[in-house]
Amino acid sequence: MTHPAQPGDSVAAIDTPALVLDLDAMERNLARMATFAREHRLRLRPHAKMHKSAELARLQMAHGAVGVCVQKTSEAEALAAGGVNNIYISNEVVAPHKLARVATLAQRLAQGGGQLAIAVDSAQGVAALAQAMHQAHGAHIDVFIDIDVGHGRCGVPAGEPALVLARAIAPHHALRLAGLHAYHGSAQHQRSPADRQASLAHAAQAVRDTRDLLIRHGFGPLLVTGAGTGTFSLEAASGLWGELQVGSYLFMDADYAANQTDPQHLPFEHALFVKSQVMSRQGDRAVCDAGHKSHAIDSGLPMVFSPAGLAFANGGDEHGVLRAATADAALPAIGDTVWLIPGHCDPTVNLHNVLVGVRGGLLGGFVERLIRVDARGALT
Amino acid sequence: MTHPAQPGDSVAAIDTPALVLDLDAMERNLARMATFAREHRLRLRPHAKMHKSAELARLQMAHGAVGVCVQKTSEAEALAAGGVNNIYISNEVVAPHKLARVATLAQRLAQGGGQLAIAVDSAQGVAALAQAMHQAHGAHIDVFIDIDVGHGRCGVPAGEPALVLARAIAPHHALRLAGLHAYHGSAQHQRSPADRQASLAHAAQAVRDTRDLLIRHGFGPLLVTGAGTGTFSLEAASGLWGELQVGSYLFMDADYAANQTDPQHLPFEHALFVKSQVMSRQGDRAVCDAGHKSHAIDSGLPMVFSPAGLAFANGGDEHGVLRAATADAALPAIGDTVWLIPGHCDPTVNLHNVLVGVRGGLLGGFVERLIRVDARGALT
Repeated sequence: MTHPAQPGDSVAAIDTPALVLDLDAMERNLARMATFAREHRLRLRPHAKMHKSAELARLQMAHGAVGVCVQKTSEAEALAAGGVNNIYISNEVVAPHKLARVATLAQRLAQGGGQLAIAVDSAQGVAALAQAMHQAHGAHIDVFIDIDVGHGRCGVPAGEPALVLARAIAPHHALRLAGLHAYHGSAQHQRSPADRQASLAHAAQAVRDTRDLLIRHGFGPLLVTGAGTGTFSLEAASGLWGELQVGSYLFMDADYAANQTDPQHLPFEHALFVKSQVMSRQGDRAVCDAGHKSHAIDSGLPMVFSPAGLAFANGGDEHGVLRAATADAALPAIGDTVWLIPGHCDPTVNLHNVLVGVRGGLLGGFVERLIRVDARGALT
Repeated sequence: MTHPAQPGDSVAAIDTPALVLDLDAMERNLARMATFAREHRLRLRPHAKMHKSAELARLQMAHGAVGVCVQKTSEAEALAAGGVNNIYISNEVVAPHKLARVATLAQRLAQGGGQLAIAVDSAQGVAALAQAMHQAHGAHIDVFIDIDVGHGRCGVPAGEPALVLARAIAPHHALRLAGLHAYHGSAQHQRSPADRQASLAHAAQAVRDTRDLLIRHGFGPLLVTGAGTGTFSLEAASGLWGELQVGSYLFMDADYAANQTDPQHLPFEHALFVKSQVMSRQGDRAVCDAGHKSHAIDSGLPMVFSPAGLAFANGGDEHGVLRAATADAALPAIGDTVWLIPGHCDPTVNLHNVLVGVRGGLLGGFVERLIRVDARGALT
């Protein structure tokens, strides 16, 4: 398929709609989080479900990350094929045919000096994983017990149920109990710092209780892994979490930008944009060529980055409708460029085959390289 | 990338999440609409933005369709590469570099006995198109004037502005004024037949006035193209439209199923499903492996097709949360299959590389073939 740009093109020449990555801003975000983790002596394991790119995963590891997280077996396979050798499937996998692929990958990564880890939240899942690992002669897999610390999705309740799972894991030589998976997803976008603090205080108590219970019963040491871009400074401050799974910090999006920040929060910059073009101009509206086939809308519509003073309304699969949001805003003309900041970076990236990596800014810059979204559509 | 199934697999063996097409139901939908168009002596030009598949476009043409519609230049290119030779870009294209591709494609299709058409809604767009067509030595392109019949997106107002565009088109030998594009998008999902009738009565008046004005000024004959799965029987009954652009009828989705039908409405069946698996079971919920990276949520969440009695809640990018919706509903267990009907077929298909075509039903059937989503991610 034709890509929207080639290396060396000017930003003005990028076809629309296209997903454009400001490499300078992305690299500043990369460095800020790497510095934070290093200064707090925390392991950094960014979530690659966000960018789905082996190149960016390797870049994060070159800047100190121990590895990356993914959500799907096929994502792990796609990134491993791109040279990423330390991967945590931070999600439950229960189908025997999928776990056979997990075991194969665990063996392959181990042979190359790498490592695979996975989350569990059921005795049935532990048994199926152990069964699959029989074929991975001698290799082991790190297992994190997923505990629900407030998100209300996967994960066993804190405390006793985690101990039950630890006991289920223990007899299997190919499974190594690595620690606790404690991710509070719904806390990430609570707007006020006070609400996020309250959620994380609750999560920390759940982690502390569970960790102490397991330690008392002879399990450990236990690494606690979790955190996201909205709360990582709180997990860090707790002294309980040892590994940060932040993802969105690298690109940022409109939903994270809507969070009220607290003093501990690092100033991440918007690095991800949809470049769009006005192709119709009628009455009080300009219509651009970016709809929800080019940006996800699960976490709200895109913000208009430029021109200033415009409100974006959903125009369907292939259109965006722009109207003046302020009295002095001028509607763009047919052919004009419109830059959008997606509402949610993860599912937006998943709509595109490549990120157009731009150096020197959106105005006078040029296309340095195309970054493949290796795991785009890797659903299984 | 690994596909979720191979031809010959049982339905039970299809990996999850996967987009599954019930071929028997799809073929019945195909035949129903073909019969309707034939009996009403209307041209059928299904919208391929929905399935993005050259194979399915060719199948529709083998069943009487004159060609297909697309929304994007790159969609047209992808389908043409797959052997589809009669394509209408039912949308505005204004960028010179894109129009150069349009001209190249118009020439190529014409050389093979096919045809390309495009919509316009501005004098600027007409001029840019004419300029680009200079390079398509001798080839012409059919041009439809897009009039806004109530949707409020692209399209000039009915009447005089359309006449202005007809006059702008006339001097250019490579542009052939083919007719009017009159699609009332927002009428498609009005729930009550009375509301849809009122919208289409308004649209019909706009079409009649505009057509008569242009005919009086010597333009014509004019083909009126438009209609969708929610209203096509009304466009047909009006006697004004000559071509139907229906798309969703082939697969159907939860949003269309929520329309109250009128007596003229044909009984289309759900043919498109997401196969998913339960991978976590906690408290009052079962969590399955399909989130909004495997189904679009712009027009509402998926309906649970089976097991019965379950409500689907959004669990994020990779998860769906199932709870009992009735007192006697039993939650599925870890490993169980869950079948979902997507809220909106078009952007759901765009998330997948293939449709898994199943023969013999979802229960005892088998995978007959994989249908490539050729224009997946064709955004430009």
